[in-house]
Amino acid sequence: MSIIVLGTVATDTLKTPFGLRKDILGGSSVHFSMSARLFTPVNIVAAIGDDFPPRYIDFIKSKKIVLDALTVQKGKSFHWEGEYQGDLNTAITKKTELGVLLDFKPAITPSQRNIKYVFLANIDPHIQGEFLDQMYAPKLVAMDTMNFWINTQRPALLKMLKRVDIFVANDQEAKGLTGESNLVKAAKQLSVFGPKMVLIKKGEHGVLFYSSKFILSLPAYPAERVIDPTGAGDTFAGGFMGYLARSGRLDALSIKRALAYGTVAASFNIEDFGLVRTAKLRLKDLDARFKKFKKLVCL
Amino acid sequence: MSIIVLGTVATDTLKTPFGLRKDILGGSSVHFSMSARLFTPVNIVAAIGDDFPPRYIDFIKSKKIVLDALTVQKGKSFHWEGEYQGDLNTAITKKTELGVLLDFKPAITPSQRNIKYVFLANIDPHIQGEFLDQMYAPKLVAMDTMNFWINTQRPALLKMLKRVDIFVANDQEAKGLTGESNLVKAAKQLSVFGPKMVLIKKGEHGVLFYSSKFILSLPAYPAERVIDPTGAGDTFAGGFMGYLARSGRLDALSIKRALAYGTVAASFNIEDFGLVRTAKLRLKDLDARFKKFKKLVCL
Repeated sequence: MSIIVLGTVATDTLKTPFGLRKDILGGSSVHFSMSARLFTPVNIVAAIGDDFPPRYIDFIKSKKIVLDALTVQKGKSFHWEGEYQGDLNTAITKKTELGVLLDFKPAITPSQRNIKYVFLANIDPHIQGEFLDQMYAPKLVAMDTMNFWINTQRPALLKMLKRVDIFVANDQEAKGLTGESNLVKAAKQLSVFGPKMVLIKKGEHGVLFYSSKFILSLPAYPAERVIDPTGAGDTFAGGFMGYLARSGRLDALSIKRALAYGTVAASFNIEDFGLVRTAKLRLKDLDARFKKFKKLVCL
Repeated sequence: MSIIVLGTVATDTLKTPFGLRKDILGGSSVHFSMSARLFTPVNIVAAIGDDFPPRYIDFIKSKKIVLDALTVQKGKSFHWEGEYQGDLNTAITKKTELGVLLDFKPAITPSQRNIKYVFLANIDPHIQGEFLDQMYAPKLVAMDTMNFWINTQRPALLKMLKRVDIFVANDQEAKGLTGESNLVKAAKQLSVFGPKMVLIKKGEHGVLFYSSKFILSLPAYPAERVIDPTGAGDTFAGGFMGYLARSGRLDALSIKRALAYGTVAASFNIEDFGLVRTAKLRLKDLDARFKKFKKLVCL
């Protein structure tokens, strides 16, 4: 089953203790696609400006990612500048240029409206809503966000939560949205806001999954080589949704394995800057590390 | 196989968002014993002052914990006062009264010298050394510590690290001792200091285990009801050592299961103040939650 992902296609300027990279290809929908493509065809819904480097578009196409719903608008492309220090757990945003995202109206093709697996990556919740309005009868809708929208667009965000099956947040966002410091309680509270399932990403500490039927918890894959964590959350989501879309199931074991594939995909992403590692990734690499991960956690 | 544990027998005054408890029974060796006793006979090596409440001694004895090496000295017993706020992840120490610990000389019986499983709970590293000198030929020696000793007794602590098989630390201690912010690297570095195995406790985020042969990682048991985390680390260590002492093995699967039993034991400890929950604990409670935990993590 195909996946459609709404998010950003961007250039990033990143500084980590391991170096500086200027204007490299990034964006939530691109990081998401780089792992999801290993499981199933992926369609990106995004906007870029007329300044966007054509070689980056060629690169995305070379990965067999469908760009039929990529809008090119007059103006500047979305650009993010960030820095990581110390343990690389927290990004310090230096600059965010929204550019063409300010008046982005998602437009998809008629056949894309039938896609069953939908991921709303981090973007203005109003845009998430306008896009979701265009989908016919999705089987599974998952949604990500970030603190910026929690703080500036809370009502629109809460409205969106009623329309999705899975809400994906990191630990700080989950605490910020609920005022709950205990993550199990925070996940439960988020579920009351609407989504049947809540997935809390804890970075190097792994992931917590909550539904009224079961709770799951997995550690991260132990990583010694953390070069650049940018896009790790989206790469995780891509592996997670990709596995679910291919399996077509939503039982506890399938979700647990999807979480593990997301975890493993993210563990590759952080090993190098931007998309350097995930662009080379093959499903057999994921499978091999999944097997190691299984051995690591199974009792 | 029996276990011998060196540590504190104390009174604690604790404040958490759920209430205040004054002068309740605590101490590292007591919390450790409360879970280890479920697997095997446990011997405590500790000192108390002549002010120590006799009812607490009777309580420990009622749990079949051997107190042959409990020294009663003239003076005040060890007393700790702490507070937890917000997410209860960090203890704020309000008062530490070392009392009789200042001139504590561990003294064990001749038969105790033959015990094969040794746990050195958090106490002055010089005392840990003096006690370990008295043991004949232990099969497994594990050691805990805390930031206080890292900062004030670093040379003695590093000397001890060369004498133990497993070093148990929390994430902050591991980072503090090595200057490494990546926990896998920190564990590796600690192993270079001496111990073949390093176990890093991450509180609500679970546990990381490092040896040159394998790395293990487990999440914590998802807990919604966290009332008082005091002694969670020692309860974890008690479950871990108890399982190993009873199984008699040290292969990867046995260690992983020992980590899981420690995790599960700690998840009971935090559900109520002090020893309230763990004092009532039976092995079948641990087994039942171990099964749930297994289902939670296994892929």
